Amino acid sequence: MESAELIERALAGDQRAIARVVTLVADGEENGRQLLAVLYPLGGKAHVVGITGAPGAGKSTLVSELISTIRNEEPPAPHSETSHEPLAVVAVDPSSPFTGGAILGDRIRMGDHSGDPSVFIRSVANRGHLGGISSSTPAVVAALDGLGFREIIIETVGVGQAEVEIASACDTTIVVVNPGWGDGIQAAKAGLLEIADIFVVNKADRPEADRTVTDLMSMLDVGHALDWEPPIVRTVAIDGTGVEELWNAVQDHRRYLVQSGSQHQRLIRRARHALVGALRDGVEHSVDEIGRDVLERLAARTEDPWTVATAMLGAR
Amino acid sequence: MESAELIERALAGDQRAIARVVTLVADGEENGRQLLAVLYPLGGKAHVVGITGAPGAGKSTLVSELISTIRNEEPPAPHSETSHEPLAVVAVDPSSPFTGGAILGDRIRMGDHSGDPSVFIRSVANRGHLGGISSSTPAVVAALDGLGFREIIIETVGVGQAEVEIASACDTTIVVVNPGWGDGIQAAKAGLLEIADIFVVNKADRPEADRTVTDLMSMLDVGHALDWEPPIVRTVAIDGTGVEELWNAVQDHRRYLVQSGSQHQRLIRRARHALVGALRDGVEHSVDEIGRDVLERLAARTEDPWTVATAMLGAR
Repeated sequence: MESAELIERALAGDQRAIARVVTLVADGEENGRQLLAVLYPLGGKAHVVGITGAPGAGKSTLVSELISTIRNEEPPAPHSETSHEPLAVVAVDPSSPFTGGAILGDRIRMGDHSGDPSVFIRSVANRGHLGGISSSTPAVVAALDGLGFREIIIETVGVGQAEVEIASACDTTIVVVNPGWGDGIQAAKAGLLEIADIFVVNKADRPEADRTVTDLMSMLDVGHALDWEPPIVRTVAIDGTGVEELWNAVQDHRRYLVQSGSQHQRLIRRARHALVGALRDGVEHSVDEIGRDVLERLAARTEDPWTVATAMLGAR
Repeated sequence: MESAELIERALAGDQRAIARVVTLVADGEENGRQLLAVLYPLGGKAHVVGITGAPGAGKSTLVSELISTIRNEEPPAPHSETSHEPLAVVAVDPSSPFTGGAILGDRIRMGDHSGDPSVFIRSVANRGHLGGISSSTPAVVAALDGLGFREIIIETVGVGQAEVEIASACDTTIVVVNPGWGDGIQAAKAGLLEIADIFVVNKADRPEADRTVTDLMSMLDVGHALDWEPPIVRTVAIDGTGVEELWNAVQDHRRYLVQSGSQHQRLIRRARHALVGALRDGVEHSVDEIGRDVLERLAARTEDPWTVATAMLGAR
């Protein structure tokens, strides 16, 4: 299929065409870059929500319940900010049921949504990159944004400091913790305090939930200097408790970004993140292009890789 | 300290100066690049040996025993290829005792060598990169090479396909497996068969060792097309059994590379790997340099990140 026809079909909502576009774009090859050159100018309208947290925190179940909440919303009033536009989930979590790593119950739950034609779900391999976010994630998000998805949820597992990267790819970052979270080492948590626009204490029916919420509140008091005070939402994802409140908090944050003018900073940050990913992905190709003679000079030690790299990257 | 003085001291064997050079170089900042521009042309003489394998396979113990073997060698005959030049270990393994992640017994063992002034040991954080090799590893190896280390051992944990990357950074790649290794999923092993110049079956006193060796031999028979047939060395690293044979195999492979003319290909491959790492490391800096106006155009969707990245990388 020609690129133009593929994009036309995908824009019309053809799920297979959408899936094909996302695959090409995620591959990071020339075909995908051509599609992105067409789709990127069409985008910039999606609200991108990131969900991160430790494995087992309940992120996937939350995402599934969020989808249900969004899909079951009342039809929007005229000029309302919410809508029934198609929504997409991008899972960069190797333990996510989207990527096949979870228990059967979760998988069935997700299976329900994959039958919904206006919910697009895709897992993204964690290509050559540590932890949270794949370098192809910004490309996949940009494609879905250009194709008209107005809500895009990125689910990513928290792996040490790498989980912090998700904030650069999102407008609203949700950090999911469980009761007892406040107890462990503090260093790993400072980064999370910084990136969270919304905290979720999931499995909030457990006895330690109250203390975890209190701990979180005092931590947030210390580190806090911005207009937006991250709300702490209690959920029991497994039965849907609190998920509507969570979605309301996402909408609040979205309004805050627009009204405070912070939305533009987020767009700049997302653009920067996409550019860094595109450059990292382009490096191998670029080295293939420079020709054997440069590699020969490097091997002969008449040039050094770091000076050559600086020249290559600085020459725009 | 000025760069020139630092390098002078490091070249004279001052361990603290060497450590400082390695730290600066591993940081990937401008200071480090300046040092590399001086040191890279001095290098190209080291034999770089990579050791990879699953966590718990016994890599660190093997490395420790290899150090003992190398240090206790007979003085070299005139014009011999072996020598008593200083040797360095670069550990990119988060579970390595060099990086503090292992049991006390191993740590003590390593402590012995760190008292030896001609053995330099350094752990390298796995900065922003999945699995086997950090992007700063080629820089650290290049610095040590330029400083006169003639034997450099890189220890890296095998994490899926990423462990394959170590071969691009080394002249000789040792893959360490344990008895029973032949039993599991085959796909993950194909990559290892490809990169191994030498196989080690460590913990070879276990009963399944014979079958693992036989399995390996039949796998190698299938995949094999080159002049060099990877030897399979049995070791019991914990008591030093087989470590001398392993070191002899490394020397054999080194001679093979020189005599067959393959050494040049390895140098080219190492240079390419270093250039890719240098470019990946330089991306963030490069994005900071391009200026706000480009990011504004990206956020406004009048340019797209993938086209900009291609232009930036292609403009040499």
